[in-house]
Amino acid sequence: MSYGTIFDAWRKNAGRVWSAYVKHAFVKGLGDGSLPRQAFLNYLRQDYIFLLHFTRAWSLAVIKAETLDEMRLAANTATALINEEISLHIKTCTEAGISETELFATEELTENLAYTRYVLDAGYAGDLLDLLATLAPCVMGYGEIGKLLSCSKTSDQYSDWIETYASHDYQQVCHDVGQLIDCAVERRLGSDPPGSPRWLGLCHRFTTATRLEVGFWEMGYSK
Amino acid sequence: MSYGTIFDAWRKNAGRVWSAYVKHAFVKGLGDGSLPRQAFLNYLRQDYIFLLHFTRAWSLAVIKAETLDEMRLAANTATALINEEISLHIKTCTEAGISETELFATEELTENLAYTRYVLDAGYAGDLLDLLATLAPCVMGYGEIGKLLSCSKTSDQYSDWIETYASHDYQQVCHDVGQLIDCAVERRLGSDPPGSPRWLGLCHRFTTATRLEVGFWEMGYSK
Amino acid sequence: MSYGTIFDAWRKNAGRVWSAYVKHAFVKGLGDGSLPRQAFLNYLRQDYIFLLHFTRAWSLAVIKAETLDEMRLAANTATALINEEISLHIKTCTEAGISETELFATEELTENLAYTRYVLDAGYAGDLLDLLATLAPCVMGYGEIGKLLSCSKTSDQYSDWIETYASHDYQQVCHDVGQLIDCAVERRLGSDPPGSPRWLGLCHRFTTATRLEVGFWEMGYSK
Amino acid sequence: MSYGTIFDAWRKNAGRVWSAYVKHAFVKGLGDGSLPRQAFLNYLRQDYIFLLHFTRAWSLAVIKAETLDEMRLAANTATALINEEISLHIKTCTEAGISETELFATEELTENLAYTRYVLDAGYAGDLLDLLATLAPCVMGYGEIGKLLSCSKTSDQYSDWIETYASHDYQQVCHDVGQLIDCAVERRLGSDPPGSPRWLGLCHRFTTATRLEVGFWEMGYSK
Repeated sequence: MSYGTIFDAWRKNAGRVWSAYVKHAFVKGLGDGSLPRQAFLNYLRQDYIFLLHFTRAWSLAVIKAETLDEMRLAANTATALINEEISLHIKTCTEAGISETELFATEELTENLAYTRYVLDAGYAGDLLDLLATLAPCVMGYGEIGKLLSCSKTSDQYSDWIETYASHDYQQVCHDVGQLIDCAVERRLGSDPPGSPRWLGLCHRFTTATRLEVGFWEMGYSK
Repeated sequence: MSYGTIFDAWRKNAGRVWSAYVKHAFVKGLGDGSLPRQAFLNYLRQDYIFLLHFTRAWSLAVIKAETLDEMRLAANTATALINEEISLHIKTCTEAGISETELFATEELTENLAYTRYVLDAGYAGDLLDLLATLAPCVMGYGEIGKLLSCSKTSDQYSDWIETYASHDYQQVCHDVGQLIDCAVERRLGSDPPGSPRWLGLCHRFTTATRLEVGFWEMGYSK
Repeated sequence: MSYGTIFDAWRKNAGRVWSAYVKHAFVKGLGDGSLPRQAFLNYLRQDYIFLLHFTRAWSLAVIKAETLDEMRLAANTATALINEEISLHIKTCTEAGISETELFATEELTENLAYTRYVLDAGYAGDLLDLLATLAPCVMGYGEIGKLLSCSKTSDQYSDWIETYASHDYQQVCHDVGQLIDCAVERRLGSDPPGSPRWLGLCHRFTTATRLEVGFWEMGYSK
Repeated sequence: MSYGTIFDAWRKNAGRVWSAYVKHAFVKGLGDGSLPRQAFLNYLRQDYIFLLHFTRAWSLAVIKAETLDEMRLAANTATALINEEISLHIKTCTEAGISETELFATEELTENLAYTRYVLDAGYAGDLLDLLATLAPCVMGYGEIGKLLSCSKTSDQYSDWIETYASHDYQQVCHDVGQLIDCAVERRLGSDPPGSPRWLGLCHRFTTATRLEVGFWEMGYSK
């Protein structure tokens, strides 16, 4: 399934930063099972906090939407995150002996603060496009990684995580968000987005968010 | 079903302004069928616009929430508004010959702008409590009016509207929002909210929003 | 002094709504001295509240600015409003026997709520251009009215008010804000703003704010 | 000059994190001149970006203020930052051969993103107190460091920087902000702030911002 024209352009523009993100050692470790369990759990705990702020960011997208379609997709995404995706994290962590209270009390690390608050502030500072450009790397990057690892994985150690993002449901989310972005961009920038004076700024937002994804993987090893 | 302790206190504090809202001539006209159809349709068109901004306001509540429970209820309310409640408006308007495109293009009147943007700015300016104090009059007032008219109505002219808000589902919403408010207030102000220096400010927010509800009914007759 | 190219285009697009604002009976009453003193004082009290929220709106412009020049002009405008322009209101009101405490406690009327919160929400919902399109009618409209009345006035009853906005200092503000708007629009929409898909939306914002200015004059007579 | 009662309490609560910030190796290096020039310039370039976002954060404080005094101090602080403090950075950098254009184009590092966007989001998420609790560590910490180094410094290498923050003017800023915080807290939490259910949350905000200041010093060595 296509993730949309604008995402493709932003992804291409991000170049090596995008590769550094989707082909990170952490990702390889998920595929071949070499990722230390502790690193995965560190990541999962931070990702739980991340999801809370990502839900806030999609709620901000509702506030900044201009059409009923934009509002609906953003509201439904926020609700899916806070009701469903977060439950997966709680379940996996519970199985690993980390309670929900403990999860919620996780100290948020700098890389997490930087990423989530950058996304939120992109929305406060700019319009819906600024916000979507910072939301895209996470949504679509996980979709791309899921597909990639689902085909290439050599271990079942992290197959639950992989299948979540390789699943048809998640790929559909990527497709829908890609369409939302294409429509939102056309509505505001017209039929030649790269010709708009805002184009470089949006590319910069996308690349910065992608760079912060790289930092997020690296955070897993530390702590 | 109880709408909660804090709502009761805010409602009592609003005094005559609250009565002017829930016992407005417009409300009586819904109950005895004397409300002119045109006034109802004017109201419904403005209320469609209102719901869009109310969805935005509940999305803002997600951003300003501090617990998972607060986030979930706010996100679910926003989603229910944009997916379900708004569909009722579209359906009723379609039956009355007003298309969805026409609905979306309705010019927003001053009373509507004042109410919706006041609610949103309460959230931007203050914390979750400031926002909830301005959201409560609409949520609970409609619940109270629905219950009232469901018992006292002498005409079936507007019974669809009445039953929407008298319904068990809607009463449950009022109950849940009431609980959210009670918990959110206790979490931030402690066990004696009227003793907090913020109490009068929150009462003022509630009463101002109630006053703007009165203006909203009156808008129906104009235009 | 020119108020800039974009303002001229927005003003022209607003057509009769703009005339209804700058040639309102209230304005004529300021020029020929026929405006009842009480209406002027009502207006002044509401305008004091208005200035507080206008200061907040210019502060929001700082948050949404993208260049140092945009930030500086917005911050300086907010500071001038809260330090200087508001002092004029306090002085005039004090002379009329209204204390500053009384001023601050003025109940904000619906027309005032509608206008100020619409401006603020334009900024929260959109980008800097959405915000500037709603700020322009007040800034430049008062400049235009000041110039107009300064030449045509037949009474000195309200000459202090008139000279404030006819003054070189205030005309300079209009000129500077006009330049800010021209640059901010070019930076985001390029060299053919009316060709941008956002143009109509910005015109709509400008016209809505102008319509709310008309309501603001009318509010003076009521209360 | 006292920095206020609330600051003292928050500072004490932060304990070792506060010491790690004001007695950091970077600070010692400023005092004895052992800080490598390159680290200082790296820091200064990031601090330039920091000041832009700090100006935005003080502008957000204007939006979230409830009294004229709160508004004025916040607006004046934002204006002083964007007009004066930033000029010092531009001057020092220019002398070091870094142009203003180059400064503005500095790539913002993760530690900077984390700190500045955390402060801004504290304001968006909560009320003025949440925002002030994250603004205080920078304002007062620099005041404390300035005073400390002014007495203890053994080199004049960085005396310009030191004297900026040791100056009477800057100490007055710390005093005034301290008073603003004391009044704002009393206004919202009453006469026993540590007894408020919000106290721990505010302490946590202060300590998190202090922790991010530690990261900011460390960033200077990297790059």
